[in-house]
Amino acid sequence: MPHPPGPITLLTDFGDRDFFVASMRGVVLTINPRAVIVDLSHHVPPHSVEAAAYLLKSCYRYFPDGTVHVAVVDPGVGTKRRPLILKTPRHYFLGPDNGLFSYIFKEEHEVEVREIENQRFRLESSGHTFDGRDIFAPAAAWLTTNQPFESFGRRIEQWETFPIIRPEWTENGLVGKIVYVDRFGNLISNLTRNDVDAFRREHSVEGYAFQIDGYRIDGLVDSYAEGSKLKPSVLINSHGAVEVFIKEGDAAVQLKIERGAEIILRRSTG
Amino acid sequence: MPHPPGPITLLTDFGDRDFFVASMRGVVLTINPRAVIVDLSHHVPPHSVEAAAYLLKSCYRYFPDGTVHVAVVDPGVGTKRRPLILKTPRHYFLGPDNGLFSYIFKEEHEVEVREIENQRFRLESSGHTFDGRDIFAPAAAWLTTNQPFESFGRRIEQWETFPIIRPEWTENGLVGKIVYVDRFGNLISNLTRNDVDAFRREHSVEGYAFQIDGYRIDGLVDSYAEGSKLKPSVLINSHGAVEVFIKEGDAAVQLKIERGAEIILRRSTG
Amino acid sequence: MPHPPGPITLLTDFGDRDFFVASMRGVVLTINPRAVIVDLSHHVPPHSVEAAAYLLKSCYRYFPDGTVHVAVVDPGVGTKRRPLILKTPRHYFLGPDNGLFSYIFKEEHEVEVREIENQRFRLESSGHTFDGRDIFAPAAAWLTTNQPFESFGRRIEQWETFPIIRPEWTENGLVGKIVYVDRFGNLISNLTRNDVDAFRREHSVEGYAFQIDGYRIDGLVDSYAEGSKLKPSVLINSHGAVEVFIKEGDAAVQLKIERGAEIILRRSTG
Repeated sequence: MPHPPGPITLLTDFGDRDFFVASMRGVVLTINPRAVIVDLSHHVPPHSVEAAAYLLKSCYRYFPDGTVHVAVVDPGVGTKRRPLILKTPRHYFLGPDNGLFSYIFKEEHEVEVREIENQRFRLESSGHTFDGRDIFAPAAAWLTTNQPFESFGRRIEQWETFPIIRPEWTENGLVGKIVYVDRFGNLISNLTRNDVDAFRREHSVEGYAFQIDGYRIDGLVDSYAEGSKLKPSVLINSHGAVEVFIKEGDAAVQLKIERGAEIILRRSTG
Repeated sequence: MPHPPGPITLLTDFGDRDFFVASMRGVVLTINPRAVIVDLSHHVPPHSVEAAAYLLKSCYRYFPDGTVHVAVVDPGVGTKRRPLILKTPRHYFLGPDNGLFSYIFKEEHEVEVREIENQRFRLESSGHTFDGRDIFAPAAAWLTTNQPFESFGRRIEQWETFPIIRPEWTENGLVGKIVYVDRFGNLISNLTRNDVDAFRREHSVEGYAFQIDGYRIDGLVDSYAEGSKLKPSVLINSHGAVEVFIKEGDAAVQLKIERGAEIILRRSTG
Repeated sequence: MPHPPGPITLLTDFGDRDFFVASMRGVVLTINPRAVIVDLSHHVPPHSVEAAAYLLKSCYRYFPDGTVHVAVVDPGVGTKRRPLILKTPRHYFLGPDNGLFSYIFKEEHEVEVREIENQRFRLESSGHTFDGRDIFAPAAAWLTTNQPFESFGRRIEQWETFPIIRPEWTENGLVGKIVYVDRFGNLISNLTRNDVDAFRREHSVEGYAFQIDGYRIDGLVDSYAEGSKLKPSVLINSHGAVEVFIKEGDAAVQLKIERGAEIILRRSTG
């Protein structure tokens, strides 16, 4: 059983200009004036469920036991897609059933999933356009007032996930993809430290290289400072992922590479 | 009498790059280390009192009893415009006397207004350029330490408001305006659910349409997901306002429509 | 001795889109669930140590005794540059030894500096790319749980600073520089109220003017509202610095002037 419900994190694509996030904060504090509210990010690209899922995967584990993660990137708001509440050994998660929790389902082995049905935990509202304010924020707040997890709705056994693309072996080498571009323009791939280690073991070669969009990068550096200001370098980033960067530059802009681009791990002697 | 003063919200046009908002947070915590500070938004367009007023109107009611709303969009800082503190049955409001609270005066029926005069509640400072830090943040913080509302300054009976434009009947129909464009490019108008209901009752017609800048949109949908990706749709949004959007698109950019544009509710058979 | 460690402020160049700041917040709350976390800014221009130092200087003094300021603008992350923890009579500061605290060393007279060495206060992590999450956030959080300052590492007597450029006398007058451009496009210089006062005393003249990039501005105004909408004006800002602005405009954009530009204080009769 998780710790008593703790801080509430908010992850949305609402931006920080308007009254959307503020309304959610107000609703939480009305229900639980002692709630601790923490922003994950409100700058997910509009409607990008996959970017939100990746962002959540990259930081949720750093939060304390009992943390209640609320994720609202919800192009289907107002349709029949269900509002979900999840319990894992350490955390809770609330959000629409649209794949936002795909990585959570993959990485956490004991997940209990319920549909948020209980009308007591909803804000009375006439519309169907802002479930962040009317369903998810109040449910999260009620959870932190020690309402039992079971009281939110019935347990369900099926939910949406999107396929998490893993690198693939081809005759050219191990082919991955850029899955996230961060604020510095660093290109984060789905190749991992484990992939690199396995490649080195299997091929019994010292030399290996990364190929991305015409650029060939030999080997890894240990820190951003060791990279080149003139051409791309590669390191294993703080989440164990292979990341392409230009020292004190913006690799995405300078190399004109976007999310979705291929990155190939191959022998350097070829 | 309102609840004991509770969380402090901040609404400014200061952005989040500089040291302005941080200074206000520091001043609040110096006076009341237990204050709970909540951001409404710091991205009001610079000097836009009307946008700030609309934003405040759209979320203040979701905050708990006793909330202290600090709003600083203040092109007249350093002039004779007075610093105000307001008390309504549920909330407090602090900010310059420049129309920021126009909607509050319209929507709240019992408002007591005082000028912030008491030097004890100001930060000592030699300048007149940053009243957010020197007057409004400290006054809000002192209020949450249970300083009586009356001690801030003398009651006043006149203040600035700007006219809140209501839709007008013309021979073409009910003519409203776009009053806010949100981060998704959704066009929020001053037409309301009540206006639409009244129109339908009076005209005893099934069919009605919205006209905006050459586009005609028949009827309403219930959610963003029911809209079209190819042309504009209309729904009643989470605040009861008529809103024009393009599904998973940006209506403001794609239709080239800005704040201030006309939107007409009329018979569809014309 | 400072007050018991209080709120934790965060100053970074990480932006607010990604999972970097969120990860730091999570780490802090895991170690101290009651920590109060306050954002200074996360929008320092990437890798700009000088902009971060100026921002910190401009607001740190408004925070309560015991505040723990964490500043992470760290192009040298992963290299041998040391992680520092500082104690001044009122505050603590944590960040890399790269000049971030240059103004603190100049303005505070009793500063005790230690290297953060104690492995107990680090997050276990295999990488060297995110010391904000792995070193600075946990050390700050442990400090607020009353770990003694001395326990973080050994005292050191040398550290990096960058030269803080002061205005210089030339035959043309007192030559300063624009050191910060804020979100409104206001141009903040390193000329101060004291410089202006001294100039007026020494020259026994009524008239003085500011020269910036071909524009001549006579004398000072007291507030933004007293400026002109058509041409630049000058005032002493809320930190006592000489600042060039255009009323309700953006001086940086409209005058095409950037950080680093010269501003000269000279006699107006010339």
